[in-house]
Amino acid sequence: MNFSMVRYIVGWLMLLCGALMMLPMIVGIIYGEKATIGFLISGLIALAIGFLVRMKKPKNTRIYAKEGLILVSISWIVISLIGSIPFIVTESIKSPVDAIFETVSGFTTTGASILNDVEALPKSILFWRSFTHWIGGMGILVFVLAVFPLTGSNYMSIMKAESPGPKVGKLVPKVQSTAKMLYIMYISLTIIEILLLLITGMPFFDSLCLSFGTAGTGGFGIRNDSIASYKIIHQVIIGIFMILFGVNFNVYFLLWNKKIKEAVKCEELRNYLTVIVVAIIVIFASVHGIYKDAWLALKDIFFTVASIITTTGFATADFDTWPQLAKAILVTIMFIGACAGSTGGGIKVSRCFIMLKTVLKEVHAFLYPNNIEKIRYEGKVVEHNVLRSINVFVMTYISFFIISFLLVSVDNYSFTSNFTAVTSAINNIGPGLEEVGPTCNFSHYSIPAKIVLTIDMLAGRLEIFPILMLFVPRAWKKF
Amino acid sequence: MNFSMVRYIVGWLMLLCGALMMLPMIVGIIYGEKATIGFLISGLIALAIGFLVRMKKPKNTRIYAKEGLILVSISWIVISLIGSIPFIVTESIKSPVDAIFETVSGFTTTGASILNDVEALPKSILFWRSFTHWIGGMGILVFVLAVFPLTGSNYMSIMKAESPGPKVGKLVPKVQSTAKMLYIMYISLTIIEILLLLITGMPFFDSLCLSFGTAGTGGFGIRNDSIASYKIIHQVIIGIFMILFGVNFNVYFLLWNKKIKEAVKCEELRNYLTVIVVAIIVIFASVHGIYKDAWLALKDIFFTVASIITTTGFATADFDTWPQLAKAILVTIMFIGACAGSTGGGIKVSRCFIMLKTVLKEVHAFLYPNNIEKIRYEGKVVEHNVLRSINVFVMTYISFFIISFLLVSVDNYSFTSNFTAVTSAINNIGPGLEEVGPTCNFSHYSIPAKIVLTIDMLAGRLEIFPILMLFVPRAWKKF
Repeated sequence: MNFSMVRYIVGWLMLLCGALMMLPMIVGIIYGEKATIGFLISGLIALAIGFLVRMKKPKNTRIYAKEGLILVSISWIVISLIGSIPFIVTESIKSPVDAIFETVSGFTTTGASILNDVEALPKSILFWRSFTHWIGGMGILVFVLAVFPLTGSNYMSIMKAESPGPKVGKLVPKVQSTAKMLYIMYISLTIIEILLLLITGMPFFDSLCLSFGTAGTGGFGIRNDSIASYKIIHQVIIGIFMILFGVNFNVYFLLWNKKIKEAVKCEELRNYLTVIVVAIIVIFASVHGIYKDAWLALKDIFFTVASIITTTGFATADFDTWPQLAKAILVTIMFIGACAGSTGGGIKVSRCFIMLKTVLKEVHAFLYPNNIEKIRYEGKVVEHNVLRSINVFVMTYISFFIISFLLVSVDNYSFTSNFTAVTSAINNIGPGLEEVGPTCNFSHYSIPAKIVLTIDMLAGRLEIFPILMLFVPRAWKKF
Repeated sequence: MNFSMVRYIVGWLMLLCGALMMLPMIVGIIYGEKATIGFLISGLIALAIGFLVRMKKPKNTRIYAKEGLILVSISWIVISLIGSIPFIVTESIKSPVDAIFETVSGFTTTGASILNDVEALPKSILFWRSFTHWIGGMGILVFVLAVFPLTGSNYMSIMKAESPGPKVGKLVPKVQSTAKMLYIMYISLTIIEILLLLITGMPFFDSLCLSFGTAGTGGFGIRNDSIASYKIIHQVIIGIFMILFGVNFNVYFLLWNKKIKEAVKCEELRNYLTVIVVAIIVIFASVHGIYKDAWLALKDIFFTVASIITTTGFATADFDTWPQLAKAILVTIMFIGACAGSTGGGIKVSRCFIMLKTVLKEVHAFLYPNNIEKIRYEGKVVEHNVLRSINVFVMTYISFFIISFLLVSVDNYSFTSNFTAVTSAINNIGPGLEEVGPTCNFSHYSIPAKIVLTIDMLAGRLEIFPILMLFVPRAWKKF
């Protein structure tokens, strides 16, 4: 274990986190809030610790896959701890467990909250909550790689551990250039959304925060009713951008390079859009009776499906009151999640469809035992090791899910609440059903349950293995 | 597709089914019931059709794997249709869909019922319900192989398609001798249970029916409160026998051959007992507060865990009123199920533990990338194709589960009811939670939902693929 290299990168990360806290501080200054000083203090703490931690440059900069996993886990935990300081210092959230829950929910782009009244919070705190989504969305270490002059090592293992999906697509040969490229596209899309919201009449502060929440597919709102009280045009814009941020960023890279044909051909994109359209149609058939206006129903259903499949979690309607079929479909797409290589969570569209193809292939194999056709995705043969890693991922995911569900069930809320609370946490969505439905929050859960759900959010965002490693004593051994 | 061979074997099966109906007829005669004539008619219908269908012996007796699957599916559907005739003829169940649901629930050893008042039924009908469990438990085609002089073909593919678990253990080299061997052990264990129940004072009729239900891990009761109103000693005996019938029959074969050491070493047996003990301990910790008497609590928990993990479904307590942790554990063991090669359903203990080992191996592989140790189970390396088939099975199982859950959700019962109704059907358990809890039944579901659940029960009992084949048009092609 190359501890000094881990320490060094975590140090950089703390510096970064401290620097980023200056943004909500500025927000605080503009609005003349008491919380400003809280961000100054928090920022200075982060910068000071970061400076000390990364002072000594490591001799050996080599990072192996295993260290990549541990490094990513530690980084996310450290940034969550540092990121929760403003909540505690400004007394916006009193319990440290709650503050960490909220921060992890922010960075992992879950959007599950323990706050009953977000409108009572200072604007700087609201900004910080939404901004954590934006930072976490594309990956914090990918950010470090994009921004800082880290040299002398192969950082592929870090990117692998932090990027969602079955395969890591390097856009360009160099990892750091890929990271930069991803952030350029991410920033561009975010700015376009902000501008569109501004043009259509949303206040600047709201459009900033909501765009951060959309971009990271996070879901923290700045009003108690999430997005419900915004104008329909804003809901539609946010809905469309949620879907856009759930798309594999490879598609945007192809568009960037004017490879429009290839971009449109992307199988995961097609699968993703198909699932969205089918979900909307079936839910519309099941739900529209409760609405007087079919267009309003369609708008809410479109928004909800976009919000849930991209694992954002914004809400314009209380879907917990919808018929069971609609809820069953929503829970199903909670698991499917967004595309690999997007900012969304869940199992990912490509994994689900490759699994589906495995099943179909098996049926085919019974009929034609001599046929040895391989499974293809995106026009390429899915290699054995990718198939294997998907299988193992799903097994691990299920095991993790069951253990979390059992632990959370100790709290004795309803079966559906506990089940969807874990579903929501591990897939980084935000709301679930019943006692964690869109009009509720997670504040009523006990401290142990909140800790479990916090771990689930991290595990979901980092696709289980990095977090699992933390529980393996041998992973910490120096060898 | 060797249709004439399929026809021939199905014909034998109908003869068998008709012959077996003479048993409830005798019960009807003893109790002087009107239903007697119903069984006579049903039996004669079955015998007549069976005789006609199997009259012409096929020239080509060869059966391929694919045909094995289709044959098994068709056989189970045919026997379910034939088996439902007595319910309709005697007017015990008026709707044909309900009658088929009840019969499939019987043969697949699910034990889910659409009847509100079983005590109002004639004894001959109660006997038939329980007896279907016993017939279905060890497999109807295994019965055919054991009893009838079918020669000239390799029947391994049939046995493979009907026997539960990741691998089919032939006890002895010849398939038909294996089938005989299995039935000898099955009958012996059933007789021992009947005798024990008789000795401890249970009426003969009850001990027969309940032993059939236990042996097949079915769960149809003959009283409205299932097993709750029987003496504690009877509940304990039934509890122990449920666990015994959930054990891999290989273990009994080893004991039979006095290989006690090997039998005790069986990894699946150890895993199975470990899960049972852990489940009982955790549920006891969570539940005992609601009971005044700790021993009574322990008795009910032991019985419930035994009933659920073996997928029997008998009940002595309304576990739907237990705390969420207890219910969460019960739902978890609903999925785990009993051992492979037993009469129980579910995913099977060995599959679950091999999957768990896959996950642990992956973690290990991150730490020691050069290590190429293989997964071992029962002291042997788990071959790649077995691992693959387990993965594919689980993927298919999940897909089937989700589709069923979505379809059943159209009925708009609660999320938990629908989820556990499908869980219960696909794992062949019987009760679920909330509206399908131990004090409820499935009568309130709509006809389409009942059809879906009926297909789920068949799919669960035959481990998905044979039933899936029915939906593939190409599987029916002659080539």
